Amino acid sequence: MAEITVVGAGMMGSALVYPMSENGHKVNLAGTALDRDMIDACKKTGIHPKYGRAYDKNTVSFHYADEIRGLVEKSDLVVCGVNSFGIDYFAKEVLPFVRGGVPVVSLTKGLIDEGGDLIDYPTYMKNVSGTGTEICAIGGPCISGELVQHDHTVVALCGTNAETLKYIKSLIETPYYHLWLTTDLHGVEAAVALKNVYALGVSLSMGLFPPEADNGHLNPQAGLFGQSVREMTRLLMLLTGSAESLYVCASDLYVTVFGGRTRKIGTMLGAGLPAKEAKDTLKDLTLESLVIAERTALWLKKMTDKGVVETGDFPLLMHIYDILIGECAVNLPWKAFSK
Amino acid sequence: MAEITVVGAGMMGSALVYPMSENGHKVNLAGTALDRDMIDACKKTGIHPKYGRAYDKNTVSFHYADEIRGLVEKSDLVVCGVNSFGIDYFAKEVLPFVRGGVPVVSLTKGLIDEGGDLIDYPTYMKNVSGTGTEICAIGGPCISGELVQHDHTVVALCGTNAETLKYIKSLIETPYYHLWLTTDLHGVEAAVALKNVYALGVSLSMGLFPPEADNGHLNPQAGLFGQSVREMTRLLMLLTGSAESLYVCASDLYVTVFGGRTRKIGTMLGAGLPAKEAKDTLKDLTLESLVIAERTALWLKKMTDKGVVETGDFPLLMHIYDILIGECAVNLPWKAFSK
Repeated sequence: MAEITVVGAGMMGSALVYPMSENGHKVNLAGTALDRDMIDACKKTGIHPKYGRAYDKNTVSFHYADEIRGLVEKSDLVVCGVNSFGIDYFAKEVLPFVRGGVPVVSLTKGLIDEGGDLIDYPTYMKNVSGTGTEICAIGGPCISGELVQHDHTVVALCGTNAETLKYIKSLIETPYYHLWLTTDLHGVEAAVALKNVYALGVSLSMGLFPPEADNGHLNPQAGLFGQSVREMTRLLMLLTGSAESLYVCASDLYVTVFGGRTRKIGTMLGAGLPAKEAKDTLKDLTLESLVIAERTALWLKKMTDKGVVETGDFPLLMHIYDILIGECAVNLPWKAFSK
Repeated sequence: MAEITVVGAGMMGSALVYPMSENGHKVNLAGTALDRDMIDACKKTGIHPKYGRAYDKNTVSFHYADEIRGLVEKSDLVVCGVNSFGIDYFAKEVLPFVRGGVPVVSLTKGLIDEGGDLIDYPTYMKNVSGTGTEICAIGGPCISGELVQHDHTVVALCGTNAETLKYIKSLIETPYYHLWLTTDLHGVEAAVALKNVYALGVSLSMGLFPPEADNGHLNPQAGLFGQSVREMTRLLMLLTGSAESLYVCASDLYVTVFGGRTRKIGTMLGAGLPAKEAKDTLKDLTLESLVIAERTALWLKKMTDKGVVETGDFPLLMHIYDILIGECAVNLPWKAFSK
């Protein structure tokens, strides 16, 4: 049995504790400074407040931020479960204490412009920390609450070393938690970041054309889904030179359109709520989709200025940017989709 | 204005008459011998019985099978709207009468084994007829009833000649009907055929794990969706050498999972109804998915015997075949998905 420390007591990190502890590992759920209330609640009740399910007393323990260094130093696997705004903290305050040869699994999704390149978070954290730690990642279609309820869940475990991936899989897979293994780390990480933006795009349709009894208005949804897949394919090719992880894009887009938080803001915007009001309504949620849409659109604009790409190849993404940042009204460029 | 003849008064052919007539073209809706009742009803009321919407009296006329040859001989565009079982009829009895230089647009979806190659219907019909007629096709996410109601609909218009595609697009696109143009005819046609099989696969989940108030069971659906995209990518590569039309696969899969007839049989099978009973229940529907699943699986088995592929790369398709043809119980091979 291994000792595993999950840093960050957000939704996905806290959910992953269940399958890991069911496999008999000693799991330390360590909150950051932002997670104090969550750790308090877990310590008091043994039950995760968001999931309402008890953790196994014999294998799971709960910790505050000041214990993280000590836990990480003795762990056989470290999971990065902080949100987008915590990646510098994780890179600087946690990664340096991971033992040599111990891999990290990142659950944090995003892309960031570093010196003109739009890179994924595992790569960014590796660069910032300067350590040689191998950072793998899990991405793909997973509603965390369903994982906790033992629904069959198939996600991608990606990293640069196939042997490390097999080792991590052996620690965390269960009869209901299935892991595709792939060495296309950059592809999977770009895929799962981009899908948030495009889930917002598909959801616009749900606000514009709400399903009725006799008409699901599935054609516009599917048109946007197809355009999303086209643009995500182009982005994966631009960012990584390969679209082999498109299956992760497509399936994660599917689940996010139906089960994610991003759907809420897309539907509101489609229904005509101004961007500012929609954002205010949801300000308590970590809407990574907004950040990723802005970063990706700005990067594409720069690439267009350099003559590398045509923003005309990304009409849906650019319209999402105009809605969110330019506060333009929703007016989907259908004809641009079929150029 | 052009004269257009639609051969076959099934759902999609009859739906396409609306946008074509709205563009002012003279449209002849010509039923086959199977469509006599439908043509009777249209002649009597001017309203399509399935859609409940009147056709434009000034531009649309209705015809029986014996008029098809005469209509086709004078048309500027001919649409093949027969079902899978009518493609030999169309190839032998209709195609020879299409004027030189007049293109055909096929709406019929399927794949067929011809001398060891699994080929699409436009290619098959061209081979059978021996004519030089250019056969283009429309495929992609479209619930026909929603098209009739003017929902935004984005589909792929594919063919081998880009100029012909532009000409056809100019005849049939409307402010709500949008056409991606692509010369990847074989890719689109394989995509739209295969998506029927995989829609059945994803729908198994809806019978196995029906959504509840507090759990949509989206993770298993999305896992199957992702596995479908992986297998469809491999099949497109095998059949056409390119996966560029995967966006059509993915978006058509999306709409078929939610709005298609295939979902019904997938859900029934997932809920435990034996294959024979599920097929009997739906015997009045043209369940092309069953035919395509069988043909594709048998072709893959042959290719495996030749050492060209591994059926292990298509665990979902082979399980669908085992359920439908072997009448096995549903037992999704989740672990095979993550191998």
